[in-house]
Amino acid sequence: MKNGRNNPAKQSAAPEPAVPKAVVSRLSLYLRELQRLIRDGRATVSSHQLGRLLGFTDAQVRKDLAYFGQFGYPGIGYRCEELVAAVRKILGTHERWPVAIVGAGNLGRALLGYKGFTQQGFNIVAAFDIEPATVGQSIEGVRVYHASRLSEVVAENKIRLAIVAVPAPAAQGVADKLVAAGIEGILNFAPVTLSLPPTVSMVGVDLAIELEQLSFSVTNRGDAKEPDAKETVRLPTRSHRSA
Amino acid sequence: MKNGRNNPAKQSAAPEPAVPKAVVSRLSLYLRELQRLIRDGRATVSSHQLGRLLGFTDAQVRKDLAYFGQFGYPGIGYRCEELVAAVRKILGTHERWPVAIVGAGNLGRALLGYKGFTQQGFNIVAAFDIEPATVGQSIEGVRVYHASRLSEVVAENKIRLAIVAVPAPAAQGVADKLVAAGIEGILNFAPVTLSLPPTVSMVGVDLAIELEQLSFSVTNRGDAKEPDAKETVRLPTRSHRSA
Repeated sequence: MKNGRNNPAKQSAAPEPAVPKAVVSRLSLYLRELQRLIRDGRATVSSHQLGRLLGFTDAQVRKDLAYFGQFGYPGIGYRCEELVAAVRKILGTHERWPVAIVGAGNLGRALLGYKGFTQQGFNIVAAFDIEPATVGQSIEGVRVYHASRLSEVVAENKIRLAIVAVPAPAAQGVADKLVAAGIEGILNFAPVTLSLPPTVSMVGVDLAIELEQLSFSVTNRGDAKEPDAKETVRLPTRSHRSA
Repeated sequence: MKNGRNNPAKQSAAPEPAVPKAVVSRLSLYLRELQRLIRDGRATVSSHQLGRLLGFTDAQVRKDLAYFGQFGYPGIGYRCEELVAAVRKILGTHERWPVAIVGAGNLGRALLGYKGFTQQGFNIVAAFDIEPATVGQSIEGVRVYHASRLSEVVAENKIRLAIVAVPAPAAQGVADKLVAAGIEGILNFAPVTLSLPPTVSMVGVDLAIELEQLSFSVTNRGDAKEPDAKETVRLPTRSHRSA
């Protein structure tokens, strides 16, 4: 975490534990569920209840959160508001992030209108394109700049995260320009692997993965014995234990 | 798996092992990497190499695949083409799926143009909307029907999977119509939870989760000690082991 730099524990020679990516993904799921519970007027939730809502065991919930500290209260469970604040701090979304988007075609426009980003702390503050008909427009209240103004607008707005929503052949060129402009993290919707320096984080969005998960679920439904099929799918007996 | 119904092992009273959702997600990642290796002319790959490409241990790769059978050859590793065929069969994408999309706004249009779906075995064969200006159009070669024709078109094209790309307030109504039309799996882009019968699978796409993962990665970068930060992020020492 950001303040880990001042943490005296860092002085020790002990190797630091790594947080698996899957744990970080589950933090987002816990956050969504907690936000929903708060909207429904709930003040506290147990690890058992939180796990049940998501199809995880209570041990999984406790273990995931234990990577980041001690959040539960004996006999009470988690205080929803408090845990939401803690998880947002871990994810870095306790402060709002200004975000740039490159590509204002159909996908870019869809993402500019996506309410989920704003809800979770991300404000798209600038869009970039090269189409003369699009540059200068305002889409969902966001101005579209010519891509040649990337560095300038990124610096002016202290933008650290960017979304790449251009066709595949243009993606690497855009990524290079984003890196040169000082962007630290790229969310890539183009179905290509980007080559980036190790100082820049990248998350690739592969929408076909979600359809494949659905295809698996529908294909294997015949063997699903219990209504928990949303989380796990039961297959013919094999000699291996589940994780 | 589909043919599990005829599997004699099913007659036993032993409980069937569950496949965790995370394992199924990793199948998609293995598939993408294998497809890339084949494009690069590779015939075989070891679990170590495959794991390394994705940031997993070789034990993880072997354990994940072992849920579904025995795929490796001693001293050879996996045969790429053979494993791709096996994984596609497990995921159900060895045959092409005709898919319907409801909502032909910006997001729907972006998804209609998304090459990744076709590449992985999904053909969007029909789109639905209620806007008079949109109904009757052909977008990316796909005809847009009025939503009132859903049942008829779904039956005619033997469509089992549908994508919901309508605004949040309309999503549940659309889902109800899809269920009535006999759809078995829904990929939901609307940022709302859909209430569905247990016989219908649902995968929700929450694009803010991906941005949160990026935000976490950028926020915790200061503590990342090694260039493997794409897979795991190192945090100040705690008393918990990594999974």
